[in-house]
Amino acid sequence: MYGRYTQELGVYAKEEAARLRESGQRRSVSERSRALDLLEYDKGRCAKCRIYTVRCQKFLISRVGEDWIFLILLGLFMALVSWAVDFCIAICLQAQKWMYGGLDSNVFLQYLAWVTYPVVLITFSAGFTQILAPQAVGSGIPEMKTILRGVVLKEYLTFKTFVAKVIGLTCALGSGMPLGKEGPFVHIASLCAALLSKFMSLFGGIYENESRNIEMLAAACAVGVGCCFAAPIGGVLFSIEVTSTFFAVRNYWRGFFAATFSAFIFRVLAVWNRDEETITALFKTRFRLDFPFDLQELPAFAVIGIASGFGGALFVYLNRLIVQFIRKQKAINRFLMKKRLLYPALVTLLVSTLTFPPGFGQFMAGKLTQKESLVTLLDNRTWAKQGIAEEFDYIGHSDAWKHPQVNVFVTLVLFIVMKFWMSALATTIPVPCGAFMPVFVIGAAFGRLVGESMAAWFPDGINTDGTIYPIVPGGYAVVGAAALSGAVTHTVSTAVIVFELTGQISHILPVMIAVILANAVAQSLQPSLYDSIIRIKKLPYLPELGWGHHEKYNIRVEDIMVRDVRYITLNCCYRDLHNVLLTGHLKTLALVESAESMILLGSIERAQLQALLSLQLGRPRRLEYIRERALEEKKRLSVVSNVGSEDGSHRASQEVRFQISTEESSFSPARPVPQKPLKPALKRPSVVERPPEIPTSPQDNSGIALKNLFCASPDTEGLEKNNNVESPTSPELRRPSKRVRISVVDDVDVEDDMTIREIAEWEEQQLDEQVNFSNCKIDPAPFQLVERTSLHKTHTIFSLLGLDHAYVTSIGRLIGVVSLKELRKAIEGSVTVKGVKVRPPLASFRDSGTTSSSENEATELHKLWDRHKSLSLPRDHTPSESDEKSQ
Amino acid sequence: MYGRYTQELGVYAKEEAARLRESGQRRSVSERSRALDLLEYDKGRCAKCRIYTVRCQKFLISRVGEDWIFLILLGLFMALVSWAVDFCIAICLQAQKWMYGGLDSNVFLQYLAWVTYPVVLITFSAGFTQILAPQAVGSGIPEMKTILRGVVLKEYLTFKTFVAKVIGLTCALGSGMPLGKEGPFVHIASLCAALLSKFMSLFGGIYENESRNIEMLAAACAVGVGCCFAAPIGGVLFSIEVTSTFFAVRNYWRGFFAATFSAFIFRVLAVWNRDEETITALFKTRFRLDFPFDLQELPAFAVIGIASGFGGALFVYLNRLIVQFIRKQKAINRFLMKKRLLYPALVTLLVSTLTFPPGFGQFMAGKLTQKESLVTLLDNRTWAKQGIAEEFDYIGHSDAWKHPQVNVFVTLVLFIVMKFWMSALATTIPVPCGAFMPVFVIGAAFGRLVGESMAAWFPDGINTDGTIYPIVPGGYAVVGAAALSGAVTHTVSTAVIVFELTGQISHILPVMIAVILANAVAQSLQPSLYDSIIRIKKLPYLPELGWGHHEKYNIRVEDIMVRDVRYITLNCCYRDLHNVLLTGHLKTLALVESAESMILLGSIERAQLQALLSLQLGRPRRLEYIRERALEEKKRLSVVSNVGSEDGSHRASQEVRFQISTEESSFSPARPVPQKPLKPALKRPSVVERPPEIPTSPQDNSGIALKNLFCASPDTEGLEKNNNVESPTSPELRRPSKRVRISVVDDVDVEDDMTIREIAEWEEQQLDEQVNFSNCKIDPAPFQLVERTSLHKTHTIFSLLGLDHAYVTSIGRLIGVVSLKELRKAIEGSVTVKGVKVRPPLASFRDSGTTSSSENEATELHKLWDRHKSLSLPRDHTPSESDEKSQ
Repeated sequence: MYGRYTQELGVYAKEEAARLRESGQRRSVSERSRALDLLEYDKGRCAKCRIYTVRCQKFLISRVGEDWIFLILLGLFMALVSWAVDFCIAICLQAQKWMYGGLDSNVFLQYLAWVTYPVVLITFSAGFTQILAPQAVGSGIPEMKTILRGVVLKEYLTFKTFVAKVIGLTCALGSGMPLGKEGPFVHIASLCAALLSKFMSLFGGIYENESRNIEMLAAACAVGVGCCFAAPIGGVLFSIEVTSTFFAVRNYWRGFFAATFSAFIFRVLAVWNRDEETITALFKTRFRLDFPFDLQELPAFAVIGIASGFGGALFVYLNRLIVQFIRKQKAINRFLMKKRLLYPALVTLLVSTLTFPPGFGQFMAGKLTQKESLVTLLDNRTWAKQGIAEEFDYIGHSDAWKHPQVNVFVTLVLFIVMKFWMSALATTIPVPCGAFMPVFVIGAAFGRLVGESMAAWFPDGINTDGTIYPIVPGGYAVVGAAALSGAVTHTVSTAVIVFELTGQISHILPVMIAVILANAVAQSLQPSLYDSIIRIKKLPYLPELGWGHHEKYNIRVEDIMVRDVRYITLNCCYRDLHNVLLTGHLKTLALVESAESMILLGSIERAQLQALLSLQLGRPRRLEYIRERALEEKKRLSVVSNVGSEDGSHRASQEVRFQISTEESSFSPARPVPQKPLKPALKRPSVVERPPEIPTSPQDNSGIALKNLFCASPDTEGLEKNNNVESPTSPELRRPSKRVRISVVDDVDVEDDMTIREIAEWEEQQLDEQVNFSNCKIDPAPFQLVERTSLHKTHTIFSLLGLDHAYVTSIGRLIGVVSLKELRKAIEGSVTVKGVKVRPPLASFRDSGTTSSSENEATELHKLWDRHKSLSLPRDHTPSESDEKSQ
Repeated sequence: MYGRYTQELGVYAKEEAARLRESGQRRSVSERSRALDLLEYDKGRCAKCRIYTVRCQKFLISRVGEDWIFLILLGLFMALVSWAVDFCIAICLQAQKWMYGGLDSNVFLQYLAWVTYPVVLITFSAGFTQILAPQAVGSGIPEMKTILRGVVLKEYLTFKTFVAKVIGLTCALGSGMPLGKEGPFVHIASLCAALLSKFMSLFGGIYENESRNIEMLAAACAVGVGCCFAAPIGGVLFSIEVTSTFFAVRNYWRGFFAATFSAFIFRVLAVWNRDEETITALFKTRFRLDFPFDLQELPAFAVIGIASGFGGALFVYLNRLIVQFIRKQKAINRFLMKKRLLYPALVTLLVSTLTFPPGFGQFMAGKLTQKESLVTLLDNRTWAKQGIAEEFDYIGHSDAWKHPQVNVFVTLVLFIVMKFWMSALATTIPVPCGAFMPVFVIGAAFGRLVGESMAAWFPDGINTDGTIYPIVPGGYAVVGAAALSGAVTHTVSTAVIVFELTGQISHILPVMIAVILANAVAQSLQPSLYDSIIRIKKLPYLPELGWGHHEKYNIRVEDIMVRDVRYITLNCCYRDLHNVLLTGHLKTLALVESAESMILLGSIERAQLQALLSLQLGRPRRLEYIRERALEEKKRLSVVSNVGSEDGSHRASQEVRFQISTEESSFSPARPVPQKPLKPALKRPSVVERPPEIPTSPQDNSGIALKNLFCASPDTEGLEKNNNVESPTSPELRRPSKRVRISVVDDVDVEDDMTIREIAEWEEQQLDEQVNFSNCKIDPAPFQLVERTSLHKTHTIFSLLGLDHAYVTSIGRLIGVVSLKELRKAIEGSVTVKGVKVRPPLASFRDSGTTSSSENEATELHKLWDRHKSLSLPRDHTPSESDEKSQ
């Protein structure tokens, strides 16, 4: 089931990224130097020739950096993956059919074969995914939406995840469960893009750029949908609708280019494999062109739209309900936690038992695979006339819908009802899977039902002008499919996908009308399936402004902002810093000129301040103090004196209080103690896994205050936000901490002979010193709003720039702060909207023992601080050192 | 031809908007009070009934405020307009055919009729448009792009423009010239939306909101394209591509909803009018479905794409060249300026002479209208086999392409070549017209040419598998149409428009490939047609970042910013203010704490500073000074003294130096003397039209310095930008100037008996006083960047937020400024890119005598100031008074 995004992932991801980047740089540098060596070595012989070769190589490499080559490679690769996955799925499904068919002598054996096969496949898929990369579970679209909003969920884009997702998906779909391929393909394409980007960064520097990566990820999402359905236009639009809030038209062509290329290759592969004669649509329909539908049929299409709207909302609700139910039942939860492959197996058993063709499956076309069902549902012949199943030749797979005793309408109704809850249930299995295709099939069945009813009601068509144009139920199926999938995903572009899938656009107006009505109904009832999952997974999100909510234009920032802002002043002392760090729990803190003027100068990351504080109270400084004291002692003893120079330099550095620090390679925060990456989720979680770094620090009892401060850093810290100011890269961040260690090494000859009381006194004294902000990385232009900015505009700016918080100023004076939380509250009316509090049932597997809300942490911190105060035993602790060791 | 956007338009538009809004408010207030009166009056009889009625009314009115009602009304109205326009055009074209057909006895008479008819129509259209609303000329998409970027071009959205555009367009298209309907329809839909919004604001307050209006305009653009082609999806996408840089996915449904409804009504009208049997595509094709094209035909489609790319770029270039040529020829320009209807008449004469069917027109299917040509070009039969025109029955209009002596290939080539330059020429005529449809037809003809060649080359099709699938040249025509129109407009969505227009999506992959290739080629050669017009019209714009330009990621703001920023300090005196206003010419000025700290506090509009200065040096203050002097005189005479209180209050107001002034109704700039709105362009321009307000001010020789300052305000002033801080609304801006006038009235008993020398002395003294910024409207959060922000990010932020300039700060300290100009320079490499300096030939008609660049104005100002200094004759002048009078 859905995994919860926790802090450690972010921290781990950051470090991983830093490590990869560093190694990449090192490699490219070494390669270049090797090439140069080669050049000089061979100078004697054909130097010119060599130079030309090198130049050619350089030219080629620079060309490789072009966007379009990247996009072609991406499209090509994804088309191959899509085709290969489809091929494997087809083989899996054929194998099941073969087994089932071969055992027709014995029903029980047949049942065993029918049931065991999917159970084994799903269990393997779930187990494999859990072991290799638990991030591969689920659709992937919610994560991509979050990533494209600017949040770094880096380990969602690793090679491991790629392998887990592809293999897991193939097995899951090969089992014949009602699962889809399109959501995972969006994720797979993004993974591809990220890996390709990493690979191509070996050739040129451009692939390091973050904005460019986001652009490429957006294109990759389009490729994912495009090569899944061979629907380039629909793919681009669908991916835009489900992943973006604001879309740069500049990137439009990228998506189109890559998706078209991918769809082209995908279909060409089918032609080369002799599956198709030429490039055509995936589910080609053959409705008549001259009179696709009558004007008077439009009300029926509208009914399909409205009903699909309700159905879509119900599906999202049902899906969430199942997740909630399983989580709430503590007993079930505990049991499943122990045997975590049991849940997928049980669900698969239930679903495949019900679809067993000789059993209940005969009443719901159980023997058809998803693809076969869709093909039959979009058939352009009419199945029923006047309520009775007609006796024409059901060629191909259509005979599955025909039952000797049961009306075709009953079969359709049973199919819709059973598949509905089965799909909602199956998509909660912790395997890579999407819900688009099952929903699409259910929609097609519903449309078919309405169409067959209409055909039965008006056997000669509706038109009264003489010519008889019978009703085409297949057209209704197309409309229903688009409407229901549009309602579940809250998108309009399913209409385009339908046209591209069927290769016919003749029903454009009915489809558009139904899709719009379905969207209108569904959007007013429930969030989209992806937003629902985002809330369940507690990913950082910003709700959409609903439509027709006028009041959003009249709410101002001053109504929602938090007036009690945590800030630090330019001339504060370390004690203030310490207090602010203990009380607040925001990721960044505002820096104002003074408490009186409140002029906002910038914002400082919490980590930076912690670094400042640790530097001030840290062991190296204390050792220096001891050394100085020792020197003075010596001076007093041997009357040799020349220490003033050092003092002077110290004063000078104090004076540089306001150095411009926008360069990325500025000072280093000694970062919060990094916690270990997640264990593969299948292993039993160690109940309270303490980071092992702390006990290994030199003095066990030293620096309690600091340690508390760093160990219990708030939850939000892990999410590195991609704000409008370039964020520093990790390798540079780490550099100065090395410097710190070196100084420690230098001073290692000085003996730390201070008593606890002395240390406490020294720390108290240190805390009263004024903070020196030189060398501290200050974000000089944090985003500012004015009190009168409307909620609507605030929402726009937040989603445009991917902001996390913004300060509210009045002529430069800080008067408040608005974060995503306040904005969310204001938009949703309250925080306790349904679904927000939902947590996945199996999420507790991973983060048991470490979860606690940031509010709790703040109070815990308070307690610790109070205890520390009463003890008066502050010791030093060099987090930078342990930081070094842990890497 | 294209009109240039000048400053006066903006000023006029602002006042007009203010007036309208005020009158609207007044009306709604009076209505409400009337309703209340009614309620009280009838209390005796059936009060309850009345109350319910009023409540019902209120409910209905509040419902009317909903978005979807607005969108339905918009869609309905636009569908009716589109249908009516099409109907009128069809009648006009029929009339021409009828005249031409009736006169077939005499070729000369026939020629006269063939030529006179379009000349009269075009001349009428041009004249009517020029007289009623010159803004209606041209496509309208460039203006909409500018408006949606946040620039207020308000008079482009008036009722007059609407009437001019609709009638002008009908006449222009009725003439049979190669002009299009789709650009103007985008403009008409936006006009509709603006007017409807104004109308509906009578019911609720929500329609006043600016962001909402922009959202509605974006939806309207989609409706415009949607109801023009009955292509809802393509319409939405096309409008997004041509008008937006960043698109809010939130608004997506609005466009889809309105465009679908509009397209639906548009096609239903055709059904009701018995033109069609049911709702189908506008240009329905009947290509075979089973084997639309062979894989081996793809290279031919790719060739169409690449050739269309070059063709599209050539079209844009040709169009601009014609405009440039006519403008450069001074003699032509002068001549045309006098007889401004001559140019359209001449062009029409030339074009219609060449298409005269018995003349040259017989070789280029001259007798077909645009629509007929397109229908025949998309025909699914093959015209030629093995190079010779085949003798099958050319039913319908297809016989126009057949010529007894000439090959069908020659006819097609002639058609393409002639129509190409004709369309490029015709779109420069100053009538409401677009270029999309002509380009579309040319593209179809080119595609047909390639298709026919392929059919002649491979008479039995390419496929070697046994079955014969002959080549369908109609499919090539579809591909060509999409590719060429895509190349000219730089859009990919023409592909979707083509599918919706033809009702067939079977050629999706060839179309997509050709469109993408055409775009790639065209985008690397020329700007899009709309961007080209934007540059020609000198509308404020921001160029797109080209694709594949990696270096954009590496340029930083510090490389392009202007370091010499004009700023004012918090403690500056009025003399500094004066100097800054005289030297700089930016719309807003930065306010810093002090010249040493350079901490940016906000930005102040130029007008605000001018108001401050005028208040300080203005007549009321001098009169007060005189009165005080008189009082002191009196006091000295009669030893009665109690003036201190006034002084005290003055000091108090001086102390409030930093009032929070984010409320919209803050202080008033005495705005630059408003210049008269444009005369209808057909009237002879008065050579130097001096605003008449200045001579009517009380003292003719007073306030020279101020007058100079206000009269010669820079050009950029007129464009009111929609920045990220709410801009004040005009009625409130005007309020305080009334206050000023009242004080003038109070003081009218005091005689202004100061000599010129005394005034000069007094002014010198006043200039040395410190500026009091209380009550001055300061934008407290002007957009700030950091030096290390990349050009790419800067571009994104500028286009996302519609910025005009941004300050570059370093920890709160102002170090530079980047404006649209610098950004444009950096992106384009230099300012003197082709097309930027282009000015429309007839633009000089309107703004003769008043044009001068802001640099010139700055130097003129300098001269004036120097003269004033040497004269030392500063007099006062109350611009607020004249402001009052002028309204």
